[in-house]
Amino acid sequence: MSRIRVAVLGATGVAGQQFLACLAGHPQFEVKKLGASERSAGRKYGDAIKDAHGKVSWFAKDPLVPEFAALMVEDAAHMTPDGVDLVFTAVESDAAKHLEPRFAEKVPVVSTASAFRYEPDVPVFLPAVNLDHVGLIELQRRRRGWKGFITPGPNCTTTGLAITLKPLADAFGIDKVVMTSMQSVSGAGRSPGVLALDVIDNVIPYIAKEEEKVEREAKKILGKLDGDGIVDAPITVSCTCTRVNVLEGHTESVTVSLSRPATEAEVKGAWREHGAAFVRKGYPSSPRQLIVVHDDPYRPQVRLDRDNDDGMATTVGRLRADPVLPNGFKYLLVSHNTKMGAAKGAVLVAEDLVARGYIG
Amino acid sequence: MSRIRVAVLGATGVAGQQFLACLAGHPQFEVKKLGASERSAGRKYGDAIKDAHGKVSWFAKDPLVPEFAALMVEDAAHMTPDGVDLVFTAVESDAAKHLEPRFAEKVPVVSTASAFRYEPDVPVFLPAVNLDHVGLIELQRRRRGWKGFITPGPNCTTTGLAITLKPLADAFGIDKVVMTSMQSVSGAGRSPGVLALDVIDNVIPYIAKEEEKVEREAKKILGKLDGDGIVDAPITVSCTCTRVNVLEGHTESVTVSLSRPATEAEVKGAWREHGAAFVRKGYPSSPRQLIVVHDDPYRPQVRLDRDNDDGMATTVGRLRADPVLPNGFKYLLVSHNTKMGAAKGAVLVAEDLVARGYIG
Amino acid sequence: MSRIRVAVLGATGVAGQQFLACLAGHPQFEVKKLGASERSAGRKYGDAIKDAHGKVSWFAKDPLVPEFAALMVEDAAHMTPDGVDLVFTAVESDAAKHLEPRFAEKVPVVSTASAFRYEPDVPVFLPAVNLDHVGLIELQRRRRGWKGFITPGPNCTTTGLAITLKPLADAFGIDKVVMTSMQSVSGAGRSPGVLALDVIDNVIPYIAKEEEKVEREAKKILGKLDGDGIVDAPITVSCTCTRVNVLEGHTESVTVSLSRPATEAEVKGAWREHGAAFVRKGYPSSPRQLIVVHDDPYRPQVRLDRDNDDGMATTVGRLRADPVLPNGFKYLLVSHNTKMGAAKGAVLVAEDLVARGYIG
Amino acid sequence: MSRIRVAVLGATGVAGQQFLACLAGHPQFEVKKLGASERSAGRKYGDAIKDAHGKVSWFAKDPLVPEFAALMVEDAAHMTPDGVDLVFTAVESDAAKHLEPRFAEKVPVVSTASAFRYEPDVPVFLPAVNLDHVGLIELQRRRRGWKGFITPGPNCTTTGLAITLKPLADAFGIDKVVMTSMQSVSGAGRSPGVLALDVIDNVIPYIAKEEEKVEREAKKILGKLDGDGIVDAPITVSCTCTRVNVLEGHTESVTVSLSRPATEAEVKGAWREHGAAFVRKGYPSSPRQLIVVHDDPYRPQVRLDRDNDDGMATTVGRLRADPVLPNGFKYLLVSHNTKMGAAKGAVLVAEDLVARGYIG
Repeated sequence: MSRIRVAVLGATGVAGQQFLACLAGHPQFEVKKLGASERSAGRKYGDAIKDAHGKVSWFAKDPLVPEFAALMVEDAAHMTPDGVDLVFTAVESDAAKHLEPRFAEKVPVVSTASAFRYEPDVPVFLPAVNLDHVGLIELQRRRRGWKGFITPGPNCTTTGLAITLKPLADAFGIDKVVMTSMQSVSGAGRSPGVLALDVIDNVIPYIAKEEEKVEREAKKILGKLDGDGIVDAPITVSCTCTRVNVLEGHTESVTVSLSRPATEAEVKGAWREHGAAFVRKGYPSSPRQLIVVHDDPYRPQVRLDRDNDDGMATTVGRLRADPVLPNGFKYLLVSHNTKMGAAKGAVLVAEDLVARGYIG
Repeated sequence: MSRIRVAVLGATGVAGQQFLACLAGHPQFEVKKLGASERSAGRKYGDAIKDAHGKVSWFAKDPLVPEFAALMVEDAAHMTPDGVDLVFTAVESDAAKHLEPRFAEKVPVVSTASAFRYEPDVPVFLPAVNLDHVGLIELQRRRRGWKGFITPGPNCTTTGLAITLKPLADAFGIDKVVMTSMQSVSGAGRSPGVLALDVIDNVIPYIAKEEEKVEREAKKILGKLDGDGIVDAPITVSCTCTRVNVLEGHTESVTVSLSRPATEAEVKGAWREHGAAFVRKGYPSSPRQLIVVHDDPYRPQVRLDRDNDDGMATTVGRLRADPVLPNGFKYLLVSHNTKMGAAKGAVLVAEDLVARGYIG
Repeated sequence: MSRIRVAVLGATGVAGQQFLACLAGHPQFEVKKLGASERSAGRKYGDAIKDAHGKVSWFAKDPLVPEFAALMVEDAAHMTPDGVDLVFTAVESDAAKHLEPRFAEKVPVVSTASAFRYEPDVPVFLPAVNLDHVGLIELQRRRRGWKGFITPGPNCTTTGLAITLKPLADAFGIDKVVMTSMQSVSGAGRSPGVLALDVIDNVIPYIAKEEEKVEREAKKILGKLDGDGIVDAPITVSCTCTRVNVLEGHTESVTVSLSRPATEAEVKGAWREHGAAFVRKGYPSSPRQLIVVHDDPYRPQVRLDRDNDDGMATTVGRLRADPVLPNGFKYLLVSHNTKMGAAKGAVLVAEDLVARGYIG
Repeated sequence: MSRIRVAVLGATGVAGQQFLACLAGHPQFEVKKLGASERSAGRKYGDAIKDAHGKVSWFAKDPLVPEFAALMVEDAAHMTPDGVDLVFTAVESDAAKHLEPRFAEKVPVVSTASAFRYEPDVPVFLPAVNLDHVGLIELQRRRRGWKGFITPGPNCTTTGLAITLKPLADAFGIDKVVMTSMQSVSGAGRSPGVLALDVIDNVIPYIAKEEEKVEREAKKILGKLDGDGIVDAPITVSCTCTRVNVLEGHTESVTVSLSRPATEAEVKGAWREHGAAFVRKGYPSSPRQLIVVHDDPYRPQVRLDRDNDDGMATTVGRLRADPVLPNGFKYLLVSHNTKMGAAKGAVLVAEDLVARGYIG
């Protein structure tokens, strides 16, 4: 099979770099074009990410591979989809509003931006959770007259929540969710990002717009495709999002009310079995297990568990009955916000869309 | 008025040192005796807290005053209440089981240990919350044949929760509470305490026995005195207690279901007015305001707010409606775990008991 | 005595806020005018420091006092010295180059910016260290034809080093200095400041331009006034400046080669006596002791010692002989970078200049 | 070749666990026996490391393999070397004094304990630095009448320093060294270890006995074998050892005086070439490059560089001329204190001793 030619927009930012880190040596995707702001255009990528002092600003753990460093960066505002089969975008939401449709006219656009997440004809894919929303792609194409389409991923805080709720929704039904997050600083990126001055020896009790996003996206992702669109899952979600002094990985304390009684063993069973069929497909970016369940009450710990399966597994623990909500259960989860919760999650979605024939 | 002569048990530990920090220069309490383990007995306090290398291990922010440093430490196991009117104890719970009753036979014992918290004839006082449980003291004396009594303070995580729930319970009634805490490392003390190795770049999802304590104590503290004892408040409390990389001060994310509808303004009003009468008494260790309410969504922040009124005020913010629970509200609170949540809170209780004639 | 009317330039930034925190309730200085960028001009200060979301961005520990919040901010670029006797500036160095001379034509300018530090006719005052460089003010006025003058303070990392070297230079002479700093994140301010992402669980081995500044400034500050200017102290200084995960306060590991032999007791004596005459003047911002000397090897600790005398004392410890340099000694120091090392140090200098008749 | 049968003493502690992590799946070494304190004896290893609450206390990043978990722990005090060809010991220094000689009578003992480091007939091996001290083994055997021998590794802070000094000593000679370390908390282990309470937002300026160890060991490791023993390198080393809020990996700021002039390029060249022959041997635990040299002034950063080659490479950067010392150079280094600086470094030494025929 010939490799699928991809462009990465917003390639110089942190999220864009994470795309490149995931795509280095990828067996299916071949990075052909890089788009960024006018300031970076016309320079080799390796030069474009140097700061004013000549220092290379590369923030992913995996190194920048030479073939990407040598690519010429184009001005995203004037770039075309010519010569590529797929576009990954990691631009800010405001930029995405204008850029992504221009590319989607011709080719599929898989994005981490929030710009189109709440459009009724746009699916917010989460691997092994709602890839059956894929029918929305046809609706989107038809309505908008595009050859391509746009599929944004969810907010990084929605990711772990929706992944762990999905098997419970399928097995027992869920009605209500109360969640308090303890989010890492990497989710805020670098411009401006979280200042050390603000987070050392501290908890920041508010992340602007985050709670609304998670509440809205969880209902959409767990919703059902119904002809003309997604019918939101009939659940109530109540979030409190905080920032803690952690580098990477989000911890979430979740209380969920099931629609019918279940035992702890049944809940753990539903989690452990979740995604088995998906995992068997063996996509390059897939975890070996979607949800890792701990019985040790001292797990999940974000520093110990965030990198499970290169950040693509969600880890849960401390499952116990909750006395407040009907058929209530409490648990904690750890999810890697810049892997499954961002670029690498988007790449995994793209891998699935390739397998189903929507890309390539 | 002559000063009340006090002994401090467990004086060499972190909690004991916090008692001494609060009692330095206290207008009412005069520290006369210090008790600790056999190892420290017979040495001046200033020497007894030196470690193997001769280093003074004093951990409170306020300095150790010379008059305490010069006091001779006694073996708590053989110490008597002779010559003191009041005993503050900061010993471990196991030691408290045996030590505290021995002193309570003769004099009042105000404690931070959990040993007697759950006894039906023992009040768990929280300033401006349940000092009307004081009638339990007579019951305790009668039943146990003591001249003195034991009053332990609550767990440090219960403190801020119960303080902020009390005015809501009084004004609107409360039915259910869901709480996730992000607790500081100082709550665990120093032996063994929290290792840096465990908490750097991490969240620890479990604190042994903590959740049960908070759930149980909140119901007792908010309960009503009824003849022979406390009738627990008819509320359901569900806690998740975690440890974060913060030095001092606990942050708690709370969802509460009120018994009847209220507006945000009414809730804030109830908080702001709470404890006004108590505060007017002007006790030496009293905050000027019991609950500080913020409208800025970026508050409370534990590093910025824990030291309000020398750690004796509880700070709340981010009040908003909660869609999951009936008449639901969500908020965050910050409470200083080693001030109002421990020794200084106990001293404030003692100041009130003096004013009411139970001590001295 | 009537109070001295002052303007603060760069009032909305972190350093400017620190000036306002120091000047609240100051017995001598009355803040009359505030200057900032065009964006803030024409708004009340309390509004000008609100961010895009309406959140007040005030970063000093001491609260913003209402009389400053009510002051109207002027555009610094068009502001005049009319109506003020003294200007404190906390602007970036590039802006200082143009702004400070315009004000110095008429009134004294005491600054934290580096723009004029290295000019031969500009003194870099450090309290109790080189206030005898005051003669340079006349030279500066004469050469530049100004009624006022400019006196910048040193870099925050130079401050503690020069303060602790000065008594050694006076008593024993010094030849060589090797210094490694472990600097806090607050020194970098907020725009851009140090990202949590960079400093969590890390040491950043480089701070651009910092080492050169410290090496150069130490020689100037310890130099002698000689007719037309300062003759640099004949010492060699070699610095390595790093950033660690500390909120406030710089730690420095210093090795110094004295010009003649000395004992540890003599060195400690020189430190302890240093600045006694200065301290007796009792300036409002003065520490009670300039250098606090510890014998406990576990001190100084930056979190425990930075706030000594409201951040105006420098704390030293671990003095011991060094085998590498002739007459070598090693020690560690802790200095508060945003108090004595910045705005409050500048205010203390101004207090001294008032006493000597150079201001007011 | 049949595998070499090894025992690990002190197997339940942090350092012992690190040995087991390195030895899992090792191609040459087969763990046959585990020794620990009496308390652990007679239990399976997987049970012996459970704490009072039944929680498995395993602290290495790599998981505990089942074959080690199933091994029965013996009481080290009564264990014999029967059935093993080699003993790795990770016991405390006091225990090592008695235990290690008992085993060394029969078999080689490779240790991380300091007990025998300063004995004249005991080599302190550092891979690619002083394996030519191997002749000391014969002397030791002869003098002590042992069939085996003891070879302790250096203190973790000595490791990176000696590795980076060695090529400079060989190429240019070195006379003097001034070093300030910023050490991670993992070096202190877990009992008692570094409390979060002490290191959050702080720098601890003192590590008991550390500086003396580093000064002494560096001279021995860089010394020359001369008939009856090691002649210490004729260098003067002056250390200041501090603890910073970093999880793993030590950062050291080094100033070195060479015996003859050199250029920066020559110094970097010496580092880059260092250990090439050693690395080519391809030992299982060997890094691919002994010293990684950075030109980017923002490197080395401990969080980014500690894991180079699984913690077995030492990373240097910021090389520049130093004006204080003759032929002076300054640089920073990062070294992984619990990998090359402890158990895995010891395993690498053992691999070399196998190749030379001293073990097995």
